[in-house]
Amino acid sequence: MASTLSLEPKKRPHILTIAGSDSSGGAGIQADLKTIEAFGCYGSSVLTGLTAQNTKGVQAVHEIPTDFVIQQLKSVITDESPTCIKLGMLTNASIIRAMALELKNLNTINILDPVMISTSGHTLLPEDAIEALKELYPFINYFTPNIPEAIKLSGFKKKQKENENENEVGESNLTLNEMIELAKETNSKTGTFIILLKGGHSSISRKEVLTYKGKIPIIWEEGGDVNDDESDTIEVLSLYKKYTKIPENQKGLVVDILVNKGEIKALFVGKKVESNNTHGTGCTLSTAIACSYATESKDGQDDLDFRIFKRAISYTQSAIASSFPFGQGHGPLNHAHLSTRRALPPPTKHNPHPFLSHLIQSNLPLWNSYVKHPFVVQLGNGTLPRECFEHYIKQDYHYLKHYARAHALGAYKANSFIDIKAFTDIAGHIARESQMHVTYCESFGISLKELENTPESSPCSAYARYVIDIGTQGDLLDLYMSVASCLIGYGEVGLWLKSQINLGKAKLQGNLYKRWIEDYSGEDFLKAVEKGIENLERRIAEDPPNELRLARLTSIWHECVRLESAFWDMGLNLIK
Amino acid sequence: MASTLSLEPKKRPHILTIAGSDSSGGAGIQADLKTIEAFGCYGSSVLTGLTAQNTKGVQAVHEIPTDFVIQQLKSVITDESPTCIKLGMLTNASIIRAMALELKNLNTINILDPVMISTSGHTLLPEDAIEALKELYPFINYFTPNIPEAIKLSGFKKKQKENENENEVGESNLTLNEMIELAKETNSKTGTFIILLKGGHSSISRKEVLTYKGKIPIIWEEGGDVNDDESDTIEVLSLYKKYTKIPENQKGLVVDILVNKGEIKALFVGKKVESNNTHGTGCTLSTAIACSYATESKDGQDDLDFRIFKRAISYTQSAIASSFPFGQGHGPLNHAHLSTRRALPPPTKHNPHPFLSHLIQSNLPLWNSYVKHPFVVQLGNGTLPRECFEHYIKQDYHYLKHYARAHALGAYKANSFIDIKAFTDIAGHIARESQMHVTYCESFGISLKELENTPESSPCSAYARYVIDIGTQGDLLDLYMSVASCLIGYGEVGLWLKSQINLGKAKLQGNLYKRWIEDYSGEDFLKAVEKGIENLERRIAEDPPNELRLARLTSIWHECVRLESAFWDMGLNLIK
Repeated sequence: MASTLSLEPKKRPHILTIAGSDSSGGAGIQADLKTIEAFGCYGSSVLTGLTAQNTKGVQAVHEIPTDFVIQQLKSVITDESPTCIKLGMLTNASIIRAMALELKNLNTINILDPVMISTSGHTLLPEDAIEALKELYPFINYFTPNIPEAIKLSGFKKKQKENENENEVGESNLTLNEMIELAKETNSKTGTFIILLKGGHSSISRKEVLTYKGKIPIIWEEGGDVNDDESDTIEVLSLYKKYTKIPENQKGLVVDILVNKGEIKALFVGKKVESNNTHGTGCTLSTAIACSYATESKDGQDDLDFRIFKRAISYTQSAIASSFPFGQGHGPLNHAHLSTRRALPPPTKHNPHPFLSHLIQSNLPLWNSYVKHPFVVQLGNGTLPRECFEHYIKQDYHYLKHYARAHALGAYKANSFIDIKAFTDIAGHIARESQMHVTYCESFGISLKELENTPESSPCSAYARYVIDIGTQGDLLDLYMSVASCLIGYGEVGLWLKSQINLGKAKLQGNLYKRWIEDYSGEDFLKAVEKGIENLERRIAEDPPNELRLARLTSIWHECVRLESAFWDMGLNLIK
Repeated sequence: MASTLSLEPKKRPHILTIAGSDSSGGAGIQADLKTIEAFGCYGSSVLTGLTAQNTKGVQAVHEIPTDFVIQQLKSVITDESPTCIKLGMLTNASIIRAMALELKNLNTINILDPVMISTSGHTLLPEDAIEALKELYPFINYFTPNIPEAIKLSGFKKKQKENENENEVGESNLTLNEMIELAKETNSKTGTFIILLKGGHSSISRKEVLTYKGKIPIIWEEGGDVNDDESDTIEVLSLYKKYTKIPENQKGLVVDILVNKGEIKALFVGKKVESNNTHGTGCTLSTAIACSYATESKDGQDDLDFRIFKRAISYTQSAIASSFPFGQGHGPLNHAHLSTRRALPPPTKHNPHPFLSHLIQSNLPLWNSYVKHPFVVQLGNGTLPRECFEHYIKQDYHYLKHYARAHALGAYKANSFIDIKAFTDIAGHIARESQMHVTYCESFGISLKELENTPESSPCSAYARYVIDIGTQGDLLDLYMSVASCLIGYGEVGLWLKSQINLGKAKLQGNLYKRWIEDYSGEDFLKAVEKGIENLERRIAEDPPNELRLARLTSIWHECVRLESAFWDMGLNLIK
């Protein structure tokens, strides 16, 4: 609670994608921009070519002149330099060569996804362009070919031909040993940058993977049933929803291979996702790597690449697993599967209190019936019958006690010394203030004995015990919610009475309740109110509620405002 | 808890944007796709032209041939029909005319944002294209011109010329009365569809707005300090962070005007956002209207348009207010300001238990030290000293009592009869089972009296009281978390022992603890475990935790697993 809330906007890492356009929105810069949004980065794009495309295939292609491609790049980088550049479909040799000349002068982290063939089988890169890629390699940090692309780039194909499995499994369905050979060869043929060989085209058995145990770091997919430091599995996972374990020597695993300078750095192992929605998988993964790099903490360099690739791979994998029906062919991924919607915007200089203004504006008539209650009006103009006010302050004495208890309960529920101190400070403050309340009551001829002996009225009990019960039933924020409306509401009452005095509709002179008005419109109390608002907004900004949670918090607020209003009724109508 | 968790992916509404590309990512289809993601819809795009652009201006334009524009459109709509189509920059008359012919055959909701001039002042639509727009109008449902565009389209300009403020305030800075005239005129000149006249170019006073009170519905921005059913303000908001109220007759409000069939339907009033980051505001708002339409519940038709526009306007406004530094000119909006990141992917058929597998895999050594504890191993092969087991089952009797209490506490904390029933069922079940525990203990010669008189050992107390304290301190999910590991852990122990028996590493024959093993590997208990996992995953899927919340839940799980392990230690080492 000590920490204060900043309204300064947080800059987002800038990721530039250089790729083609997919009208259907599942691949190309569309997939890239969606991925960049999902990672909380800022996306810009340079278009190298447009496709008229859908989930069934590519119907037409429109090439972009090289000079206009470069003009787009210059427009972006001269205005705001990106952290990472992802290069996807580069269309032709001319664009690739021009791009190489530009990248030379940038110190960005560059990821190359050699888009050669679309998921639907459409050739996207001509032979001479594949040759030209070599000029780009020196400026690439991360390179993400799939098996067919790696075979084409490394010439591994021939070797593969001699492999007796060839006719049987097809050239792209390799064994893990063959994949590792392919990864090394691709690495040596294309230069010294880090390669992730995407294993999606091959199906591997757990047994094959385990032969590398202890030799190469094996990074198992989260959610898999494989226990990563033993070969046996987590039994209980297989209980639920018929989640099927893959037997040790059955194929069905996807292995992505991380290789650097001819050395295998890690195997990323996951169960193959059974889905037809794989359109744009390559674009998504390579962009996810860029975003993962830009957002990953850079300390612990040694396992940095592991963390980057693991995050990018599991994002892509769960984007496939959570994909929804779209189109008649290979559908797109669910790029937004990790995004949830907050029910309120973040606090800004324009609106520093989105939560409080929501609470108040969500039921203005209720709020007004409380703030401008006849009890308050009469208190302001001095016409409130003395006995009504006396009944009110006697009950307020009881309420204060429970209000202090609620804050003590807050201290019990707190998880940090900061919160414990904040809550006990308030509880202690209320306890001390009670003496002032007693003195004030004495000025009305009400003794401490009488205060203590006055039975708790039902409106007082209803409100006080509601606060305590919410505090006990819910979490710390629920509790905080239940004590907020009293503090903030009295602040509004104090300020409103002040404004009424300025309008001549209320008065201090010769008003029996002068001091009460001065107390609640005074600087000390209003400072406490401001602090209360600050804490409320900070807690909400730190843990933004979804619609469901906001509805619960709002209902607690409304109930408290209603009970506050009933408390005025109690005074005005001398309700026992 | 009765409801079960579906793993079927939810289809997202399909929004198609037909617009230009902005390489800097702040406007055009880039802004549109980011907005569509923010609203949880699916975005596809048809490119009408490309700009080499940044926050300072447009450096170059590349036009797309009309036939390729139409080919893109056909590729998208023949594969998956969109709910809404947003039309932005249409580049030239030829594209506009071709588009009109296509829209004629679609029954989509179409939003037209007549992009004529970029925020940076670049002309984006030639005169003949503006003329051609008329052919598009019949197929438009929502139309969103700003003041200069409306003036151009309606010819209101001339009228404006006669206005004496003209030289003083410039043609686009109109009074509210003038804006309302402009809105009506634009509506009559362009056809009968619904128009939102965007008032951003004019600054209006609260006094001007209030003259329409009672005549036209006035919809105030959330977060404003204006009390919507009275002219006075919410005082307490002005306390915090120097949030300044705008005096009644001072300019500074933005008013968007909703007009339909020549009739003013509503005024949307908000405080002008002080920001230089307005690049792509028009694109964002019009797309937000499309998304808002697609996602808004259609019941209560009468105020449907109000809800749609209010949501779209406040999204756009808070996107500006929360924008971050980017580029050297007019920066982009913060499209993702309402998106938060969930720490775990949603459950899918591929991984139906993302939460449980995260919990277990987040500390596998800990999990294994519990499941494969020497106590369990010796229990499985029958070598566990009888006195150790007896010490364990006596303490387990105490633990069961507190475990039942924890579920009763869950019922107290619950907000629905469903949850109350679920928790009391479990508590009651444990109470009944206690009799079986007593009978089982008797078979070891341990009487009920001895059970009752056995003092609670410190490991038993530590665990049981931790569960009760977490349940009291936190919310229902914390409590649920604290009781989960015992249930699920014993399920894993039961299943693991079963697998050990199959491997010949454990036995039932002649094993003193046969019945214990059979109980925890038996169908009844494993059914309860599966139900427990289901409830856990469902609660998490309903209210996906962020990193902070997940960390707390995970730490509760780890602590419980540690305490379970300590409970085995207690038995094995006869710890009192």
